[in-house]
Amino acid sequence: MPISGFPEWLPAQRQIEQFFLDRIRTTFELYGFASIETRAVEPLDTLLSKGETSKEVYLLRRLQEDPGAPASDDQLGLHFDLTVPFARYVLENAGKLQFPFRRYQIQKVWRGERPQEGRYREFIQADIDVVNRDSLPFHFDTEMPLIIGDALGGLPIPRVRIQVNNRKVCEGFYRGLGLADTDQVLRTVDKLDKIGPARVAEQLVETAGATRAQADACLELAAISSEDASFVDAVRKLGVTDPLLDEGLDELVQVVEAAREHAPGLVTAELKIARGLDYYTGTVYETQLEGYERFGSITSGGRYENLASAGNQRFPGVGISIGVSRLLGLLFGQNALTASRPVPTCVVVALPADERRAECDRIAGQLRKRGIPTEVAPTAAKFGKQIKFADQRGIPYVWFPGADGEPDSVKDIRSGDQADADAATWSPPDADRHPVISAA
Amino acid sequence: MPISGFPEWLPAQRQIEQFFLDRIRTTFELYGFASIETRAVEPLDTLLSKGETSKEVYLLRRLQEDPGAPASDDQLGLHFDLTVPFARYVLENAGKLQFPFRRYQIQKVWRGERPQEGRYREFIQADIDVVNRDSLPFHFDTEMPLIIGDALGGLPIPRVRIQVNNRKVCEGFYRGLGLADTDQVLRTVDKLDKIGPARVAEQLVETAGATRAQADACLELAAISSEDASFVDAVRKLGVTDPLLDEGLDELVQVVEAAREHAPGLVTAELKIARGLDYYTGTVYETQLEGYERFGSITSGGRYENLASAGNQRFPGVGISIGVSRLLGLLFGQNALTASRPVPTCVVVALPADERRAECDRIAGQLRKRGIPTEVAPTAAKFGKQIKFADQRGIPYVWFPGADGEPDSVKDIRSGDQADADAATWSPPDADRHPVISAA
Repeated sequence: MPISGFPEWLPAQRQIEQFFLDRIRTTFELYGFASIETRAVEPLDTLLSKGETSKEVYLLRRLQEDPGAPASDDQLGLHFDLTVPFARYVLENAGKLQFPFRRYQIQKVWRGERPQEGRYREFIQADIDVVNRDSLPFHFDTEMPLIIGDALGGLPIPRVRIQVNNRKVCEGFYRGLGLADTDQVLRTVDKLDKIGPARVAEQLVETAGATRAQADACLELAAISSEDASFVDAVRKLGVTDPLLDEGLDELVQVVEAAREHAPGLVTAELKIARGLDYYTGTVYETQLEGYERFGSITSGGRYENLASAGNQRFPGVGISIGVSRLLGLLFGQNALTASRPVPTCVVVALPADERRAECDRIAGQLRKRGIPTEVAPTAAKFGKQIKFADQRGIPYVWFPGADGEPDSVKDIRSGDQADADAATWSPPDADRHPVISAA
Repeated sequence: MPISGFPEWLPAQRQIEQFFLDRIRTTFELYGFASIETRAVEPLDTLLSKGETSKEVYLLRRLQEDPGAPASDDQLGLHFDLTVPFARYVLENAGKLQFPFRRYQIQKVWRGERPQEGRYREFIQADIDVVNRDSLPFHFDTEMPLIIGDALGGLPIPRVRIQVNNRKVCEGFYRGLGLADTDQVLRTVDKLDKIGPARVAEQLVETAGATRAQADACLELAAISSEDASFVDAVRKLGVTDPLLDEGLDELVQVVEAAREHAPGLVTAELKIARGLDYYTGTVYETQLEGYERFGSITSGGRYENLASAGNQRFPGVGISIGVSRLLGLLFGQNALTASRPVPTCVVVALPADERRAECDRIAGQLRKRGIPTEVAPTAAKFGKQIKFADQRGIPYVWFPGADGEPDSVKDIRSGDQADADAATWSPPDADRHPVISAA
């Protein structure tokens, strides 16, 4: 009885997920990010304190509690992202952390949303953030897309394209244009992909006090995109000037140029990207997966100056989050990924007769000691049946214990090749030791 | 603002936890167990259907739902263990799984209990189970403790001792003794460690219809323990006979003997072990950690014939669960574990001046390509300050980019040794590449 929005994978799919998570984690650690995990729950007031989030929070109550008790601020709810709990963790442990603090966090989050394709109520996010006391150098903003590019680049998935923008570009441009309510303009332009330019222009006039010419200029800005620094000229041609706009353009150039050196084609400056969440203050990131663009962004994030602050303590940060379940759900939906076998087992030791189980266990133990995943056949059976057991699970090797002082032998059941072997020394080819995950 | 019962670790502790989880997972996979994860939630009726569990379930409701709605069977609650969700998963996916199905599952679970030392409301369990259609050969019961012994044996923790018993021994013995309500006897004997033999004897007389002599015999059985098969003689001397008792003794001997061959001293037959949960039907396991016995079992499990069954489908199984958070919580409480550094970073590339950042990024990239976790210093600073940056984080190496065609050099900041190095070829000693976790 599946529950809508709460995905569960079969063992082969779970193996693919684990491969993705391992790859992501390894990349994060190569860049010096330390792992943390936060508890699944936060007090309701923490969950609702950070901007206008529309995530539907799941509240907890104990079975034996009064069901009629109203929600209070200290009531516990499941976290809906990893950024808000991380900000709380940093403030709580500031005295025990080393800054700049580079952390990664790979955990499940929950949102009581209406489920739809590629959207879940329970899903895994993989986040990196760097935070520092008081101020955080800008170059960390340039590092984020490179890390994501490395993490996703080694996976058997379609090409990813990271789209970058900078809130300062938009706000500075709107201000330079003479529009006062820059937040409202941003929110409206953010609907571009949903409702199209004509209706965005209308709404800019109706709700943000724009003239028709101002609205058109906003749309022209949003249409600018380039893989190199040429977007700057395109913006300048629109004839708007503002110090914040200059600052934003300068920052955005740095992000694009660093990415061009590291991985050409990975990053595009895309001036329509806004990100709905209102805690971002500079760089913003989204990511499109080639062929899956209509499902929206699979990684996103940005720079935030004020998320983690309390009293006169301030920890600005920049971060990015990979929607792992979302990515896998889309690819599973297209049967785009495959595992060479659904079990870790590389060798099955055939059991010639029940009384030889101890001997077979010893053989398996010798193989495992050298890192070769091994099972002993569950029951004594003819060799043909034991080969079938391995074949049904995609296990490549069957080990036959020798009888009466004969040497053992091992059979590659794919090729049928069989050769004498010693459990103390035999190893499979590296490619067979663990399941191989690839594009289907 | 920590929340009682919801532990959060600092980065160094989290690194230790991750090391433990990796070690456990690797061992499970060496034995051919495939990973699955189940959703965090189950319908309330699933959670409450398996025996007399007193776990306090956390129920979920969406923030915008009517808070006064009463709990109904299809309401969702957080799972309190991984066995009940696994049984549901097996029934749900039986047509897509290969049997016998060996799975491991490492996830958080939640219990709304009163928190106390070593007990949590949110904690990680690491479970293995083998289930089969219709019937499961007994030898899987002998394999479980060996896997747990291997998984925990490589960790820097005090010695573990797995205590094994068999429900059939107890039930057969009580029946052979003439006691009809064997469940009630078992539940009462299970309180031995809590209330002592005198009160157990009293309660056996009062609640289980035992005579004084029968109660004494039950206590004599519970006092039996041995590291080899000699417990059988001790039971025989009590003069009770019953076919179920014979079957249980035979099974228990197999578990103890297999463990003696694999890892002498790991397993003890301990005839007082009962396990409260009533779905166990044969072998039961508990585990004590030397020096931490008073905190109770850190791994437990057993054989269950009827947990996963629906209509005429039946999937008997045997499994065991490591209480990872419980284990770590106890050891952290005694400061018994240490990590050589709280970050994955092995090398910090010193930044001589801001304009050389791109060059430093390239060096870091070369090292990362060969699997060496590397950070570039966050800001340009004198070399002394950059060494301090590494020293505060326990990072062993600082890389100095050469100026004006001079070669780069790398300094081991522990020994002060510095030598010329090429980022395309230099590697740290294996022991320095990743943080080392050890007993404090």
